[in-house]
Amino acid sequence: MQDASPTKWHLAHTSWFFETFVLEAAISDYRAFDDAYRVLVNSYYHSVGHQHPRPRRGLLTRPGFSTVLEYRAHVDSVILGLLEEGLLSDSLLGILELGLHHEQQHQELLLTDAKHLLSCNPQWPAYRQDLEAPPRVESAPLHWRRGHDGLQSIGHLGTGFGFDNEGPRHPVFVGPHELASRLVSCREYREFMADEGYARPELWLSEGWATRQREGWEAPAYWLRQEDAWHIFGLGGVRPLEEAAPVAHLSFFEADAYARWAGARLPLESEWELAAKEPGPEDNLLETGWLQPASPRDDSSDAPAQLFGDVWEWTNSPYHAYPGYQEPSGALGEYNGKFMSNQYVLRGGSCATSRSHIRETYRNFFPAHARWQWSGLRLARDL
Amino acid sequence: MQDASPTKWHLAHTSWFFETFVLEAAISDYRAFDDAYRVLVNSYYHSVGHQHPRPRRGLLTRPGFSTVLEYRAHVDSVILGLLEEGLLSDSLLGILELGLHHEQQHQELLLTDAKHLLSCNPQWPAYRQDLEAPPRVESAPLHWRRGHDGLQSIGHLGTGFGFDNEGPRHPVFVGPHELASRLVSCREYREFMADEGYARPELWLSEGWATRQREGWEAPAYWLRQEDAWHIFGLGGVRPLEEAAPVAHLSFFEADAYARWAGARLPLESEWELAAKEPGPEDNLLETGWLQPASPRDDSSDAPAQLFGDVWEWTNSPYHAYPGYQEPSGALGEYNGKFMSNQYVLRGGSCATSRSHIRETYRNFFPAHARWQWSGLRLARDL
Amino acid sequence: MQDASPTKWHLAHTSWFFETFVLEAAISDYRAFDDAYRVLVNSYYHSVGHQHPRPRRGLLTRPGFSTVLEYRAHVDSVILGLLEEGLLSDSLLGILELGLHHEQQHQELLLTDAKHLLSCNPQWPAYRQDLEAPPRVESAPLHWRRGHDGLQSIGHLGTGFGFDNEGPRHPVFVGPHELASRLVSCREYREFMADEGYARPELWLSEGWATRQREGWEAPAYWLRQEDAWHIFGLGGVRPLEEAAPVAHLSFFEADAYARWAGARLPLESEWELAAKEPGPEDNLLETGWLQPASPRDDSSDAPAQLFGDVWEWTNSPYHAYPGYQEPSGALGEYNGKFMSNQYVLRGGSCATSRSHIRETYRNFFPAHARWQWSGLRLARDL
Amino acid sequence: MQDASPTKWHLAHTSWFFETFVLEAAISDYRAFDDAYRVLVNSYYHSVGHQHPRPRRGLLTRPGFSTVLEYRAHVDSVILGLLEEGLLSDSLLGILELGLHHEQQHQELLLTDAKHLLSCNPQWPAYRQDLEAPPRVESAPLHWRRGHDGLQSIGHLGTGFGFDNEGPRHPVFVGPHELASRLVSCREYREFMADEGYARPELWLSEGWATRQREGWEAPAYWLRQEDAWHIFGLGGVRPLEEAAPVAHLSFFEADAYARWAGARLPLESEWELAAKEPGPEDNLLETGWLQPASPRDDSSDAPAQLFGDVWEWTNSPYHAYPGYQEPSGALGEYNGKFMSNQYVLRGGSCATSRSHIRETYRNFFPAHARWQWSGLRLARDL
Repeated sequence: MQDASPTKWHLAHTSWFFETFVLEAAISDYRAFDDAYRVLVNSYYHSVGHQHPRPRRGLLTRPGFSTVLEYRAHVDSVILGLLEEGLLSDSLLGILELGLHHEQQHQELLLTDAKHLLSCNPQWPAYRQDLEAPPRVESAPLHWRRGHDGLQSIGHLGTGFGFDNEGPRHPVFVGPHELASRLVSCREYREFMADEGYARPELWLSEGWATRQREGWEAPAYWLRQEDAWHIFGLGGVRPLEEAAPVAHLSFFEADAYARWAGARLPLESEWELAAKEPGPEDNLLETGWLQPASPRDDSSDAPAQLFGDVWEWTNSPYHAYPGYQEPSGALGEYNGKFMSNQYVLRGGSCATSRSHIRETYRNFFPAHARWQWSGLRLARDL
Repeated sequence: MQDASPTKWHLAHTSWFFETFVLEAAISDYRAFDDAYRVLVNSYYHSVGHQHPRPRRGLLTRPGFSTVLEYRAHVDSVILGLLEEGLLSDSLLGILELGLHHEQQHQELLLTDAKHLLSCNPQWPAYRQDLEAPPRVESAPLHWRRGHDGLQSIGHLGTGFGFDNEGPRHPVFVGPHELASRLVSCREYREFMADEGYARPELWLSEGWATRQREGWEAPAYWLRQEDAWHIFGLGGVRPLEEAAPVAHLSFFEADAYARWAGARLPLESEWELAAKEPGPEDNLLETGWLQPASPRDDSSDAPAQLFGDVWEWTNSPYHAYPGYQEPSGALGEYNGKFMSNQYVLRGGSCATSRSHIRETYRNFFPAHARWQWSGLRLARDL
Repeated sequence: MQDASPTKWHLAHTSWFFETFVLEAAISDYRAFDDAYRVLVNSYYHSVGHQHPRPRRGLLTRPGFSTVLEYRAHVDSVILGLLEEGLLSDSLLGILELGLHHEQQHQELLLTDAKHLLSCNPQWPAYRQDLEAPPRVESAPLHWRRGHDGLQSIGHLGTGFGFDNEGPRHPVFVGPHELASRLVSCREYREFMADEGYARPELWLSEGWATRQREGWEAPAYWLRQEDAWHIFGLGGVRPLEEAAPVAHLSFFEADAYARWAGARLPLESEWELAAKEPGPEDNLLETGWLQPASPRDDSSDAPAQLFGDVWEWTNSPYHAYPGYQEPSGALGEYNGKFMSNQYVLRGGSCATSRSHIRETYRNFFPAHARWQWSGLRLARDL
Repeated sequence: MQDASPTKWHLAHTSWFFETFVLEAAISDYRAFDDAYRVLVNSYYHSVGHQHPRPRRGLLTRPGFSTVLEYRAHVDSVILGLLEEGLLSDSLLGILELGLHHEQQHQELLLTDAKHLLSCNPQWPAYRQDLEAPPRVESAPLHWRRGHDGLQSIGHLGTGFGFDNEGPRHPVFVGPHELASRLVSCREYREFMADEGYARPELWLSEGWATRQREGWEAPAYWLRQEDAWHIFGLGGVRPLEEAAPVAHLSFFEADAYARWAGARLPLESEWELAAKEPGPEDNLLETGWLQPASPRDDSSDAPAQLFGDVWEWTNSPYHAYPGYQEPSGALGEYNGKFMSNQYVLRGGSCATSRSHIRETYRNFFPAHARWQWSGLRLARDL
């Protein structure tokens, strides 16, 4: 798949980020580990030079895996040396921090990409046979929770780390609405399927319907029909579908069609953000080690639950600049801003996202047809 | 081109709209003029049935042109009969009004599509040789006009005709900003080109740059280099570029790149709407008969000029539902709502738009790569 | 379809051929009727200049139909003037004769292309409602006729008109074989279909199977299932399939698969040519006016029948140069030779071929996937 | 590239061939090493079952390399056991021999595919840094050698091993002709390039010209311009072009255009075969270990030299069945016959072909656009 990259590439690319934006800036006569990496593992930074075409990343047999590990060790040791000697300016320390968050993003992508690659194998091999499954829980009923409305503020406050696209903080006017207390479950999504959700154009956006036709979608990605029952392929292999677990691997178009079928809609990113606080210890993020969405317990609080972890939640907000947004200058200005067209914002992180990486202001974004992330939805509706 | 349709198709399709949504509803035993038209000239109404594929509309040699004219006369006469006898309910009178606005949309598309088709001919033939050119005016300087900000309301009030997607009227919070007093001119756009605007990826959205590379764009659509000078192809044939005239036939991506180069940005649709009043007699809409954008006179008012006519203005607003938007039920629900993904809002009408068709709340929409409409831009910037 | 051209284009192109290769050579200061035609209606002559892209021929609305007729009248009258005054050299008289045969080819293509265009209309309109059908005949049994084998000669003798690719006459060694007395009928082809011929990869060439899968072929082109019975679309409209009539509109791949299923093979072009004499009065060529293949009468002669007319017969001979073949010099060298790769030879003409145009040495050629010609097959087998 | 497969796949596929066609036939209750391989490494045998799509072979991360080596060892040991105990029938011994020749084909493809994969890396890494270069030789003049003409016989005699497509032996009539004494050299090919061979459509087949335009060909595959001089990428890395060495990595279209430019033509496969004897000790086949074409010594014999080894020689013969050819029954009938359309015969083997694998009757075949084999040409001309 065009959007996915090999593990080796992720490993080299994240070290290249440190080498290019920290080491080359900090050390005047720095000699690159290998000049060719400037092209080979540059993802999309035009300011840095040419890039090896994305769809051909899988064709690189050299450098080999061990050379990439040497590269990583080399970059790490030079950076550690600079840190110990206190030779990094505040500005470069800021870029170093950015590089760490960048690496966390690729740690997550490495898992989603490996999952996709394994799924191309008709044997459906597991990434790890010993992956523990989350506890099975009886289905939790869906409640509606009134959201914060009226004139509100969203966006990053500017204290602590945040990506450029999370700010500036700014006022928004939010209409009266409510949010579902939990994510849409596999059971609910199967009802949509049973009601011919994939065969009724009136439930779909025009572009979504065309995509569904062209791709032949009949179920979420990674759903398999085996011995007359639905199964789901995950990093632990093929397992029986768990009805109460959140549905994942939906495109925006499927999430939108489901919401219309359910008489509801997708939340706006402002609605989501106003409901969210910090991730809590019970959230199913990378640290649970399950690497799959988990069924929620019934929730007695007044606020929506499952906001962090499990699945990235599609919002009905196109990914665009906040009012007053300024791209950073230089190559790092290419990090986020230039992707602000024809993508949708997703919120809250998934079961493959690090706890220290996610925030209530965090804006992830993918094109409307993308399904290889753990992407699902929560319902919203107007009041 | 996939997005354009033949003249004959437009003529049949607009009558089919009246036949399907008015006559079939008003007359219980109505017999269609030709049952085949239900498929042949159905544009995209799944509720009505199958559709002849859009890219193959140009392959229809039957019905012939004279049969289509007979069809139009037939539908018109039945409708006039119903009107004279007062047999149309209020609800059907509403659909009749919608049908008239629908026909106005196709009158405009018929001109843009014919222009495109003629441009595919290496002889660049004129649609009409006798088309009068607008008066040439010296360049008008660009002024900045402060816009309305703070908590405001936009959207259709609900009195008088409006498309479903123009409402409901709702509050928005608008940041402090100003708008350019006029559209970007060909002279200004040539400066962008001379400054290598088409060769600098840092000025473009990532998707825009990829589109530019793939399509080989080096200038707006219909610009021709002849005898060492720029010319523009229009319905009156190939004419020398007029420097003070608004630049037209830009994609969203080009408009966005130009604005970034100019140190500004595209307006939001809310900013545009708050600045706009009704079209005035001096606006260059269809009624001037020029069918090409005209140079503006210098403007002494405090408000932006040229808001209506000349060119559709790209905004930085993705085409999405307003808060509280409800699709109409039935087939007419397919009119606008299902296209609310991956398109951008354009405002104000062009030199091919009827005066009675355009409003300050009117939302047109096209994908970001589209260039065959008269589409240009006005600059905005934050304060 | 990429391979088909509009009627108007055929009309202009054939006159352009005379203008370019006869008038421009004969008249030193000849002024073209319209210089633009050099590009617009040049099919593929690189030596003459650029060409308007083939798939965009359908987009030319100018010159209009009446202008093309004027163009034809103009070219005809200048040529007639030259002829009357005896001003054409022997060499130019030769090219004039070539131009007449060229026009005959386009007369045939004009019919096959119009048929294809009409078939794109879901109404399946007839080209002429009044087209007389050939007489229905009871099925003729298939006999086998021994062919001429051993050391033989094929190819054009060089006396009378022949295209360059028909010569030179040369020896070939032909193995012992026999040919079917008639073409494969629709009844026989339906048996292949009933025996799952379209679902058994072992009957197909690898490339043919891939093409079948990609195109979704389940029957010959223009076959329609209506009211539970097969019908065939032709220039006279949709008519019930006639079982004894020759099957037409097959690709090479389908013809080859049928032959393998029947335990036979396609003939070589040498085998066909050695069996063929001149077309006879009973052959179903253009002059019968039926414009569709006709059922054969039972045949008592010792030689294969139906060799001329009805359908072009696919042979198992790739279209290649005969030994000693030399391309003509100049632009006319582009007529035939440059197409000698990845096409197959078809023999004998169809119901749309002029009697004066076809010969036993005539080599038509199309790519293996082409189905829009009246193309069918005759069986052969080794002895 | 679609035509190439990973090394691991070749290793598994060749053992799968033995397992499927020998072990499963010989041992009634044979249990497959892994049932999934039936799909995963089945190349194109419809009779055996489904196949993993060819372009996705590179996406298989499981089975891993060591598992594939275990698989090979397993299959080898079972076969050796059967051989020692004399348990293979004559028919299965024949298939075993076929499997060995099949494995030799994949040994060669493994090298050409690895070369292609390495060439996708902008670093152009060598497969082996220590590859010895062939001796440099001054240019050998080109002589013409009269070929065998008249009524001749070609094809496999039926004694000793031969693929099905090499027979049956049959008479052909061959016209008077002569063949070049050696292959076309890089020096000669550079003259063609310097004479604008890649820019003159009149030298090319129509389909070849279109392919050249689409692919942007300006030189043979693997030719690189470095520091103002031509270099060639090979398994030993990037080396300066050697002028006297045979040109390699041409498509059929380039070979054909070169021959036309040189006033000659490509040989027919019959002409080639009649000139060829067994490969001699001086031929540059796999056993020299050079893995690149070598400059020929001047040749004093009356017969053409360099017929075996160096490069596969494109012939002007489409790959088709010989008269009387019968596909073997069963799955092995899919080996050769079903590819007999739209490909061209190449003769003589390359520097990557085993000496024991090549014969004067051996028919290799590739589509006309293929360039990733060591493919070159020898000139022929009519007398």
